[in-house]
Formats: sequence, C-alpha cells, structure tokens
Amino acid sequence: MVVANSSSPSDSINNNCFPCSNDTMSLSNLSNNSIIDAQKGDPLAFGSYWKQMSDECTVVIKGWELMSYYSDSSNMCWFMLPELRDEIERLHHLVGNAVTKDKYIVVGNGSSQLFQAALFAVSPSDVSDHPINVVVTAPYYSEYKNAINVLHSRMFRWAGDAALYDENKPYIEVVTSPNNPDGTLRVPMVNSLAEGKLIHDLAYYWPQYTPINYEAGHDIMLFTFSKCTGHAGSRIGWAIVKDIAVAKKMATFVQSSTMGVSKESQTRAAKIIAVICDGYQNFKSNESELFFEYSKRLMRERWEKFRGAIEQSMVFNVTKYPRAHCNFTNEISETYPSFAWLKCEEGIENSHHCLRKLNICGREGERFGVDSKYVRISMLGIDDEFNEMVKRLSNAKKE
Amino acid sequence: MVVANSSSPSDSINNNCFPCSNDTMSLSNLSNNSIIDAQKGDPLAFGSYWKQMSDECTVVIKGWELMSYYSDSSNMCWFMLPELRDEIERLHHLVGNAVTKDKYIVVGNGSSQLFQAALFAVSPSDVSDHPINVVVTAPYYSEYKNAINVLHSRMFRWAGDAALYDENKPYIEVVTSPNNPDGTLRVPMVNSLAEGKLIHDLAYYWPQYTPINYEAGHDIMLFTFSKCTGHAGSRIGWAIVKDIAVAKKMATFVQSSTMGVSKESQTRAAKIIAVICDGYQNFKSNESELFFEYSKRLMRERWEKFRGAIEQSMVFNVTKYPRAHCNFTNEISETYPSFAWLKCEEGIENSHHCLRKLNICGREGERFGVDSKYVRISMLGIDDEFNEMVKRLSNAKKE
Repeated sequence: MVVANSSSPSDSINNNCFPCSNDTMSLSNLSNNSIIDAQKGDPLAFGSYWKQMSDECTVVIKGWELMSYYSDSSNMCWFMLPELRDEIERLHHLVGNAVTKDKYIVVGNGSSQLFQAALFAVSPSDVSDHPINVVVTAPYYSEYKNAINVLHSRMFRWAGDAALYDENKPYIEVVTSPNNPDGTLRVPMVNSLAEGKLIHDLAYYWPQYTPINYEAGHDIMLFTFSKCTGHAGSRIGWAIVKDIAVAKKMATFVQSSTMGVSKESQTRAAKIIAVICDGYQNFKSNESELFFEYSKRLMRERWEKFRGAIEQSMVFNVTKYPRAHCNFTNEISETYPSFAWLKCEEGIENSHHCLRKLNICGREGERFGVDSKYVRISMLGIDDEFNEMVKRLSNAKKE
Repeated sequence: MVVANSSSPSDSINNNCFPCSNDTMSLSNLSNNSIIDAQKGDPLAFGSYWKQMSDECTVVIKGWELMSYYSDSSNMCWFMLPELRDEIERLHHLVGNAVTKDKYIVVGNGSSQLFQAALFAVSPSDVSDHPINVVVTAPYYSEYKNAINVLHSRMFRWAGDAALYDENKPYIEVVTSPNNPDGTLRVPMVNSLAEGKLIHDLAYYWPQYTPINYEAGHDIMLFTFSKCTGHAGSRIGWAIVKDIAVAKKMATFVQSSTMGVSKESQTRAAKIIAVICDGYQNFKSNESELFFEYSKRLMRERWEKFRGAIEQSMVFNVTKYPRAHCNFTNEISETYPSFAWLKCEEGIENSHHCLRKLNICGREGERFGVDSKYVRISMLGIDDEFNEMVKRLSNAKKE
C-alpha cells in the first residue's frame, strides 16, 4: 500500500497546519524548535487519571462476543447496549447536568454523527428547494458548517451567525454551551417570529470545565464520551431527546449512515462510566481518585499556569469567566474551558501568526466566524506539551 | 427513561416486520408457533467458530489505551490503526480476492458509511441542480436507495435499475458481486455513452460464499468485517481505492460524519484477522480449525439441507449457481450465498406471504426492485433457527 501525505482532521477541510503530534510524543521530542500542535481538541490530558485506574477499567472481549448487529430489540435505538444506556442515565443523575427521566437516549458514533442525525430529524419532512436554515452564534465550532453542508442536502443548509439571523423563515438554532471555542455559557439568540427548532450541544457541560448550575432539560441535548472522560478514540456520543418521533428519526439516521455503533466501544464506555459512578456512590475512593475532582483540579492548575503566562506576555488577552455555584461540587467555582480563546492586543492583527512565531499552532479565528485577532488553542494536550506551550507563551513579546 | 416500541433495521425504513430475534434465542424459544426472522442479514452462523477460538481472539483494553482521535498521523486516513491496515492487506494477500498493492485503504464504520463516502468522493465537485444518477442492477440490495437518498443530497440521487439506464448523462454504477440478494456474480451493466464511475461492493467476495476466481483490482472496492468473519457488531468496513484523491475525499467524509472509527473495534478486527491469517500461514491448525474451511463447510452443509427442503416443498424455487475453480482452495467449488433468493412457483403471487404462513419472515422482492414473487431469506442465522426454518420449508405446500 502507498502511504500518502499526512493529514489531520482540520487539514483535510482547511489545509493550514502540519501533521499533528500524537500521544506517543515524549519530552525528548519537545525541543525549542519543535512545533506544538494546539489547534486540535484531542483530550489527552486525562490519560494520567486512566493510567491510575487502568485495572478497574480494563475490558476483556472474547472472540465470539458482540457479534450481532443488534443490542436491544426492545428499544427503538436497537443498536444501543442496555448497559451503556443505564450507565449514561446513572452518570447524568450523579452529575445533575441533564434530565433523563421521560426522555429517549440515542447513541451515535461520536456527537458529530448525532449532530447530523438531529438536523435530519428536525428538518421539515416535505423537502423543498429551500432547505431550512441552520444558525449558530459566532464564535461557533469550526466543524459545524462542514458537517451541515458536506452532502449539499436539500433538507438543511448552513446560514451563519444566529445573532445576525433576520429572515422570517423557519430555522434550526444550535446552542453550544459551554461554547467551543470561547467557553461561555450560551442561550438561544435568534430574534425572529419564525418557527425555530433548537439543538443543544452540551459536549462541555461537565464539572471539570464549568460549574453545573442547572439540570438541562432541552428538547435535544448532545453529549460525547470524548470530552466527558477523554476517550476520543472510542467515538461514542449520545443524545437525550424529549420527543420519541425525533429520537426514532435520529436512530434511523444512525442506521442509514453506519448501521449502528461499535459494540466494543459501547461496552468500554459503559465500563468506564460505571467506574466513575462507582467511585462516587461507594465512597470507597479518596478524593483524588474521583474522576471529576481529579480532572477539575487538573484544569484549574492548567488555567492558573496559563493565565500567569498570558499576563506576562505582551501579546494576548484571554476571556475572563464569572464564578458560579456548582450543584455537583456544592461550591462556588470558576470555569476552566477545554480551549483557551485568545485575542491579541491592540496593534496586532493576527493571533495565529503570533503563535506560529512561538512554534505553536492554534486554530484561526476566521474558522469560528470571527476575525484573525482571535485564535483557539487546546488546554487538553499531554503535560509536556502543555507546559512547553505555557513557557513559550510567557515569553511572547510584541515585535 | 421511556423504552419505546421495538424496532429493527428494516422496520424503521419499511414498517413491515416484527422485532427481530437476537443471539440469545435458544432452542426452547423455538416452538412451532414462534416466528423465525430471516429477513435480516445478521451473520450469527460463524459464532460457533469464534467460540472455539475464543482465547486466541480475546482482546484486552486498559482504561488509558486508545484515547486519542488519532491513529496514524503519517497516513491520509489518520484515524486508521496501522495494525488494522496491515492485517487487511495480509488477509487479501492470503485469500487473493483483491489487489492492495499501490492502492489506498480507508477504514469506515461498516461498509454502509464507506458506500456514502464513495458516492461523495466520485460525485462531481461542482454541485448543480442535477445530482448525478446512481444506478444498480435489479435485484439490488434493499438499503442502497435509502443510503443514497437519506439526506436529499444535491450531489447524487437514486436512479434505479442499471440495466434500464438510458440517459445520456454521467452516472455512478454500483456493482455488487456476489450480489445481495441473489448471490450472482455481477459486472457493470449500464449501456450508455455517458461517463460512468464504478463502485464495487464486494462484501460477499470471500471463499465461504463463492469461488475466488480472480483478484479484483477495481477503482473502488468495499469490504466489511461483518460478512467476512461475522463480527457485525464491530461496525468495521474498509475500502480499497486506486486514486489517492478519491481515497482522501472518502477519509474526509468519514471525518465529517463520525470523526473517525472506533479504535476498540479496529483493534479487535486486527486481532481476529491476524488469527485467521496466522492459522493459514503457520500451518499449525488442523483443517477444521481454519476459518474459511470451517465457514465454507458450514455454508455447504446448510445449502445442501436447504436445497433438499426446497425440493420437497411445492412452493418455492431457488437459484442454481455454476461451479467454478476457486484459486484460494484450489478446487472446483459451488456458490453458497449468505442469502437464499426464493421465487414462488407458477400460480403463487407473493412469496413473502407464503413464508409468513410458515411463520418465517423474509424480505419482500419489491424492496430489491423486483416483484412479489421473490423473497430473500438469510442463511446465516443461528443453528437452531436455521434448522427449524428448513424443517418448516420442507413442509410447505400449495394451498
């Protein structure tokens, strides 16, 4: 087989960065000249926790197990393992971040697939020459536009910034809260008399990133295992859906597109979520062994270091977040987003270029619907990468 | 959570059958009145082999493993584990059913996803109001139409039977060989001067189903782990692609739609394929332990029983297949498709209804683009189901 030029998730859409590092990178690779890839959102930071918990979380799958397409013929989401559904419900009940009672759960190959499934499910079924408009308030997640437009569907189409939407036509608004890239809490922003449907992308609504200040009960809520625990390679996401007709359509979409979801991944996600919940419910762990305590401490420590570096630098500003009560930890808490959303100081035009001079690759503001003064960088890289990035940022100076 | 009415892959598209059985069904469930679901293609028959090989095929995954989105930054299919790519190449080299040299491999969440990825990749990039026509010779796999039309794409659209295609416009022809539902070997059928692209769906081109009589080297070839080994729950498929630009587009589609493919499933598929290849290459197994020998014998025994029953019945005919030399087994061999394609005798109009009187559920000919005289039933159910189905068929009589 021929091995082609390297690529990364963003490259193939927007050809602007170099091959990404991966989790085998070690300190010895990080010379001053090496490039730190902080443009992707690979959540490797929590790997250290799962190393500690390695034995408890181990899954063993025999050759003859998990062979059928089917997981649960009694459920409209026939490909979802009942044990995964149970653990997802248990986790939300533990954390208090989303209502699952009287709701339907649909599992998908990551929340990317469920995002498309949700669009499919809430778009008008009488397909016309005028696809329904899909809007998101800027800055918005850079991959939405491509996910919406990839197949040039007649059902739905990308229509830009929700805050600017002024058409008197039905629309779908995606509400990402906490928001990617900027970590802010979001509410619907469209100001229109037309009929609107909402999709809430709550990928980052977990205690390590933000205070859990209400139990979300929206019509369609998307979550992903990737951002909750850091297991991005498993490609497990789930939707919590109020209306059974919508949930059924979403399951039909997953069926049409991939005929279900990997059972190996579902089994493993169920096991790992169970270990998290067991830790809290059995009180057998000491605090440092509880996942959300560990991951929140890690995020807090990283953000403190990071803010210190940014303050020393003469180049960037970073968003400040309000403190709020977290119902899960029962304390007043800060927000520690998985990305830092940097804006360059007056007199500098392009944050991405500034970072590149430090051999740090971020994702440009333009890709999130704003200007080049902004850049997004990941806070979830491995320790060595993160520490080297902070060191370089603290030395950044205006030229 | 509310548990909704049950459903199966076919139900949600075409509401015509009851909940499917699953792999927990035991003989005690199979009374004369119980319904045998032979309409789906769940490949459970090979489970007995994998029980024998259980220990060799076991995978163990620790909590911290496989966390990154990335598998191989040096490959344009960045989410594909190198060990899976290597084992796929090794398997095709062993079986001799497809050329991999100087080709590109793209892994997907089953071949369903790669089917859409291939359409995306070969459709014209300048999207007009006239999507490219996609055609398949009837009888064609019942799920293609839905997979093509699900998002009402402006890139491509379902255009029916390839043998009837008479438009002088560019087209994509899907060649399924051996064919689902009827097991016949297929070649392109469109007779048009217009430019045509080909997608070869070779899901069943394995020695247990058909003699391997040539090493396929088509532009785009789709394979699936589900039908090769029976591990449908893993949702692993792969494409072998000649043109790197097409392969890159396919990888981009998988990225947009699911941001990669479960690493747990990839790891397990690599392991299981390695066990198959090791068996042949080390000559350490006795013949009954080699996978394709075992699975081919199972298919032959089933087809012999099945043909015997059909001959006794006064209701159905089944396709006869030519014998051919198999390059893999180096013997003259028959074809043992994973489905039986039944036609009812003169004077009977509806095969599906006939089967329902025997409490057997098949999939109706209409769904494959032909008439109600035809029905498809699976040959890959578990032993008890298969034997009971054969018993009932042998007693079928005209009313």
